Amino acid sequence: MKLRGKMLIAQGGGPTAVINQSFVGAVLEAKKNPNITEIYGAIHGVEGIVNEDFIDLTLETEDNLKLLAQTPASALLSTRVKPDRAYCEKMFEVMRHHDVRYFFYIGGNDSSDTVRIVKEFAVDEDYDLVAVHIPKTIDNDLMENDHTPGFGSAARFVVQAMMGVNQDNRALAGVYIGIIMGRHAGFLTAASALARIYEDDGPHLIYCPEIPFHVDQFLSDIKRVYDKHGRCIVAVSEGISDEKGEPIIAQLMDCERDEHGNIQLSGTGALGDELVAEVKEKLGINRVRCDTFGYLQRSFAGIVSDSDAIEAREVGEMAAKYAFDGRTGSVTIKRVGDYAVEYELVDLSMVAAKTKVMANNFFNKDGNDVTKVFIDYCRPLVGTGLPHPGRLRAPMVEKSYQKKFNNKA
Amino acid sequence: MKLRGKMLIAQGGGPTAVINQSFVGAVLEAKKNPNITEIYGAIHGVEGIVNEDFIDLTLETEDNLKLLAQTPASALLSTRVKPDRAYCEKMFEVMRHHDVRYFFYIGGNDSSDTVRIVKEFAVDEDYDLVAVHIPKTIDNDLMENDHTPGFGSAARFVVQAMMGVNQDNRALAGVYIGIIMGRHAGFLTAASALARIYEDDGPHLIYCPEIPFHVDQFLSDIKRVYDKHGRCIVAVSEGISDEKGEPIIAQLMDCERDEHGNIQLSGTGALGDELVAEVKEKLGINRVRCDTFGYLQRSFAGIVSDSDAIEAREVGEMAAKYAFDGRTGSVTIKRVGDYAVEYELVDLSMVAAKTKVMANNFFNKDGNDVTKVFIDYCRPLVGTGLPHPGRLRAPMVEKSYQKKFNNKA
Repeated sequence: MKLRGKMLIAQGGGPTAVINQSFVGAVLEAKKNPNITEIYGAIHGVEGIVNEDFIDLTLETEDNLKLLAQTPASALLSTRVKPDRAYCEKMFEVMRHHDVRYFFYIGGNDSSDTVRIVKEFAVDEDYDLVAVHIPKTIDNDLMENDHTPGFGSAARFVVQAMMGVNQDNRALAGVYIGIIMGRHAGFLTAASALARIYEDDGPHLIYCPEIPFHVDQFLSDIKRVYDKHGRCIVAVSEGISDEKGEPIIAQLMDCERDEHGNIQLSGTGALGDELVAEVKEKLGINRVRCDTFGYLQRSFAGIVSDSDAIEAREVGEMAAKYAFDGRTGSVTIKRVGDYAVEYELVDLSMVAAKTKVMANNFFNKDGNDVTKVFIDYCRPLVGTGLPHPGRLRAPMVEKSYQKKFNNKA
Repeated sequence: MKLRGKMLIAQGGGPTAVINQSFVGAVLEAKKNPNITEIYGAIHGVEGIVNEDFIDLTLETEDNLKLLAQTPASALLSTRVKPDRAYCEKMFEVMRHHDVRYFFYIGGNDSSDTVRIVKEFAVDEDYDLVAVHIPKTIDNDLMENDHTPGFGSAARFVVQAMMGVNQDNRALAGVYIGIIMGRHAGFLTAASALARIYEDDGPHLIYCPEIPFHVDQFLSDIKRVYDKHGRCIVAVSEGISDEKGEPIIAQLMDCERDEHGNIQLSGTGALGDELVAEVKEKLGINRVRCDTFGYLQRSFAGIVSDSDAIEAREVGEMAAKYAFDGRTGSVTIKRVGDYAVEYELVDLSMVAAKTKVMANNFFNKDGNDVTKVFIDYCRPLVGTGLPHPGRLRAPMVEKSYQKKFNNKA
């Protein structure tokens, strides 16, 4: 017999362009299921659970939910709290009080670990609870997943941004550095490679956290490209680190740290400004500019990968289907063929508190670019209908004036 | 009798998302005109003219031109050179050698001045030349124009970015500062107000270069909003200045200056980082983040205002129609009704080397927000089909757990 009771859903960590697709996918599936007596949403993730801040989604209209699905960032609002065991126990107590029987948490690897611990308390207390983790992260760093919901749309933003930068940097030449999100995994930075259409398009250099960063190498790479093209576009992960794994930004300035000891990487232009200063000083290049793509990458309204949106919706729907079938776990995305996906429920411990980084064969030998293997991997994720920048192809006119006046132009 | 001869077209200054629409509008119109013997494009603006770097657009396909029209930034490449009289004379010499009879320059007020001076040389030398300036600037600061091509698309980027920031900043609360392009005119920063849909949506504060900036006022404004909403979103022009017109960024750090003595404002996150430091230190708020929207604002591939694209195409086409009718001047956009436009050719001196700033009635009394007059002015310019972010509306669930345990949650 199927478990009957309330469902509770929450969202955690950094927002994405499609996390609400997953939320709505799970809720709409629940609305069709007679075993679900009420649908509660926790406000601000796990904080909303311990504080008992629940919104009664049973009373939300279907049209509004469908509008929300297309809205970036977390409709239920989010949290940076990473619960310890005591916190999880408190969460469990509130859930039990409300007779919550289905618990869904949309988030990254920390969120998966939270689901795992809460489920442990339920088992210990002999309380029937089905708990499912729904994957989400623009960092694309969850184990067991070919890729994660949110990555494709953030990657699409990066690609469209870099396509524009390519035109801008050709029009007014110089060195351009784009700082892209990614603490440990370089997927998002690497995705910028998809902006290349013409042979001399940028980014000409790509630096990810997986490859130790050397300022000297960085400078000589830029010099080589600049000497060849008269310009150079560089994509740099905010999380670039040295051999010991120490972030480069921490070597350049004092940094804010969060409660987990992580250095704050986003929301500041400092890394880019320091790299610009290095290039100006050491290479003597005059026009050196930097943009830090920042929060726009993860929550820009109106840039969404269609495949990402569909998959995000489906992982939410599948999470509900698995849960209502009584199965606890983490929904994962597997790639089949070229290109389609399947969704598998795996044990929470396989995803929880683990981080995936880019495979070795995604990087070129010098560690300053990606391979065709990566580009083939990434292309279906950013969706269909990307812009296709044009370029003039007509021939140049003979310099008859200079010829006439003996090149004394 | 109509003047018969070659046409030369060039693009100058900072790229926009639709400057190629104007370029293509003029070229396609020229291709239909039997009096135009050849169509030349100068590479890198006025530099391409003195260097005789001409591309023979007569040999460009129509399909490729139409693709280019949808491509951001300057297809003919651009320049930051602002010609003096000697430079203009040199330009004129090369044009005369090539029997150029129609000269088009797409750019801002400096470009308009260049066209004016070149035309003067032609008059002095009794050489028949029709010269037309085609307006372009994301800054929206050209006299005689209700608004300028390029502004609407950049404004749309800012609006969509801020719509996303609104969701992101609600999900993870704090102070968010967005630094937006604009040296003397605050139009682009002010456009961020169009991102507001719900009553507590940001930006809650808007600071433009037209209103002298006071750090103390800035801090007390933020405190007031933060105390009310528990968060605060601020839009700040990169060009904010003090009472004497000295940019705030110059007071905070050493700045790069261009050949005209202008401080480099874009391509650095410094202003934002300094403002963040002020807010953290003086208001003791923990989560303070900043994005500098940077070059993405003017050349992002795929964010275009449909009205801006159409108008940009039309000013190019109208420039050609006026020119082929023998009329020299600057094409301007006039607003008629609510909302439609007409294009008028005005004397070059009315636009040349002048800067328009925001009208007084676009600002609120405190100078930290815009009025409904501005919003009504701006709305048609960003185009149709903007995203409409959703928000949950369902009621909260009674806190029965906290009630049972005497609020000892």
